[in-house]
Amino acid sequence: MTKFRPLHDRVVVRRLESEEKTVGGIIIPDTAKEKPMEGKVVAAGPGARNEQGQIVALDVKAGDTILFGKWSGTEVKIDGEDLLIMKESDILGIIS
Amino acid sequence: MTKFRPLHDRVVVRRLESEEKTVGGIIIPDTAKEKPMEGKVVAAGPGARNEQGQIVALDVKAGDTILFGKWSGTEVKIDGEDLLIMKESDILGIIS
Amino acid sequence: MTKFRPLHDRVVVRRLESEEKTVGGIIIPDTAKEKPMEGKVVAAGPGARNEQGQIVALDVKAGDTILFGKWSGTEVKIDGEDLLIMKESDILGIIS
Amino acid sequence: MTKFRPLHDRVVVRRLESEEKTVGGIIIPDTAKEKPMEGKVVAAGPGARNEQGQIVALDVKAGDTILFGKWSGTEVKIDGEDLLIMKESDILGIIS
Amino acid sequence: MTKFRPLHDRVVVRRLESEEKTVGGIIIPDTAKEKPMEGKVVAAGPGARNEQGQIVALDVKAGDTILFGKWSGTEVKIDGEDLLIMKESDILGIIS
Amino acid sequence: MTKFRPLHDRVVVRRLESEEKTVGGIIIPDTAKEKPMEGKVVAAGPGARNEQGQIVALDVKAGDTILFGKWSGTEVKIDGEDLLIMKESDILGIIS
Amino acid sequence: MTKFRPLHDRVVVRRLESEEKTVGGIIIPDTAKEKPMEGKVVAAGPGARNEQGQIVALDVKAGDTILFGKWSGTEVKIDGEDLLIMKESDILGIIS
Repeated sequence: MTKFRPLHDRVVVRRLESEEKTVGGIIIPDTAKEKPMEGKVVAAGPGARNEQGQIVALDVKAGDTILFGKWSGTEVKIDGEDLLIMKESDILGIIS
Repeated sequence: MTKFRPLHDRVVVRRLESEEKTVGGIIIPDTAKEKPMEGKVVAAGPGARNEQGQIVALDVKAGDTILFGKWSGTEVKIDGEDLLIMKESDILGIIS
Repeated sequence: MTKFRPLHDRVVVRRLESEEKTVGGIIIPDTAKEKPMEGKVVAAGPGARNEQGQIVALDVKAGDTILFGKWSGTEVKIDGEDLLIMKESDILGIIS
Repeated sequence: MTKFRPLHDRVVVRRLESEEKTVGGIIIPDTAKEKPMEGKVVAAGPGARNEQGQIVALDVKAGDTILFGKWSGTEVKIDGEDLLIMKESDILGIIS
Repeated sequence: MTKFRPLHDRVVVRRLESEEKTVGGIIIPDTAKEKPMEGKVVAAGPGARNEQGQIVALDVKAGDTILFGKWSGTEVKIDGEDLLIMKESDILGIIS
Repeated sequence: MTKFRPLHDRVVVRRLESEEKTVGGIIIPDTAKEKPMEGKVVAAGPGARNEQGQIVALDVKAGDTILFGKWSGTEVKIDGEDLLIMKESDILGIIS
Repeated sequence: MTKFRPLHDRVVVRRLESEEKTVGGIIIPDTAKEKPMEGKVVAAGPGARNEQGQIVALDVKAGDTILFGKWSGTEVKIDGEDLLIMKESDILGIIS
């Protein structure tokens, strides 16, 4: 299987479909102009470097269920699956 | 119940309706072009990191009644309730 | 009475009317395209944080009479009174 | 008499008229699209804070004759006199 | 043979053709408006300098298979081969 | 005679005419859209402050013959002479 | 002969003609919208200052053969020769 390691503060996200969303209990209103979406973090980068050149670890990790802005990230297909690559700053929060 | 942890310097805010607003004693003039609104902080992130990579705690906490710009934040629905996710910098101040 | 605590480097300002302005001795020319106005600081935030995450106290305090740009700040109504919330950087100086 | 204390790195400047300008020996060409003007510093702020939160004193002081860009600053009238409030960075240099 | 040393945080990248892409298992959807592409790092610069003037080594090295934004980089031809010069920040991640 | 002290990282420059330019050996092509010009530094400021609030001395000094972008600086007339006030960053280099 | 010392992080570059380019083995495709060009560094500045006010030496030196963006730099004529003045950040890499 192909393995993809995101660089810096990027994460790979799998969108969660409506069925799973109902389980999580969060429904996004259709009328909102910038609708956030639920997703699952598949892989997280090591973190970006601060001004001292030190890596600052990310706050999300693989397996986290997250909420992110609908238009965030870049679409890719890895091993036939549609995924998104985005920066951690595009993630609004973690659902648990 | 679904639990949502906002990341970094984001907070989850419940809008306060007009009835509650009268209790709080603050009325926003209708004619103002960017009308601030009252809300209640439902959840607050741990804070953003400064340039040294240290987390700087937020000044608002869950339970605070706040004033925020009308167009601030992103609308989400958690457990059937309409809420807003915004950055602490969008909050004008705390009402007590 | 409602109490409002501005966050960070924000201040709450009460506009001073023309009568009071004459007492203060400052008259703003009508022809200036961005006319500064006189006001009284009602409440001042604790100050913004610098890059080290330390709070830098504001130079204005409640009770100061100030001059500020006419279009500065956001209008709010607290306990029936029209007030402005602005950042200290919008304040041109202190009148004494 | 009204006293005005400019905040941070702002200075209060009195424009110098043509007669005084001839004494100073500097004439600004009419054809220049952004013509600098001569002025006298009436009051200077304590200085802006650097990133460590320390105040950096200004290089100009009350009484200095300066050259500044024609469109710099905000017009105010203090005790009936037309003055300008500008930032020290708008000042090109000191005439002596 | 010509040798090209990229400066700072730049890398030289050889685009991977469709056949190789199938081996890697990643297929980019045709409909995405900003389609990432697969490539092989041919040469990597020493890294950019941080604010202290120290060189921060890159996270990619020659030989890495990477994913990058389709419009990233500048096209050059070295020894008859079409290559791209881009910054490491244009690279989304490493495929392994 | 009037003395003008430029502030911070500003310098006062006297344009060099064509005759002197021939002596210096540098001719600027007429067809270039942003033609650099030769000039002589008449006065140099003490230097700008870095983020620690320390003054960083300029690399040019009075008497240097310099090359600068044609549209750089602000025109002034001091003691009847047409001069330019510009920032050191507008200077391309020193001719010797 | 005229000597020109570039300031800060600027370098003086002599464009290399097509004949020399063939020797170097690099050919720039005609169809690229922003075609890089080959050049020889004639003189290099001492380097720009970092935020601590220290000079950070350049990575290129006189004699280096470089690749740079076609539209980089400012054209000058020194001792009758057409040269370019650009910043080191406009240089893509060093050919050897």
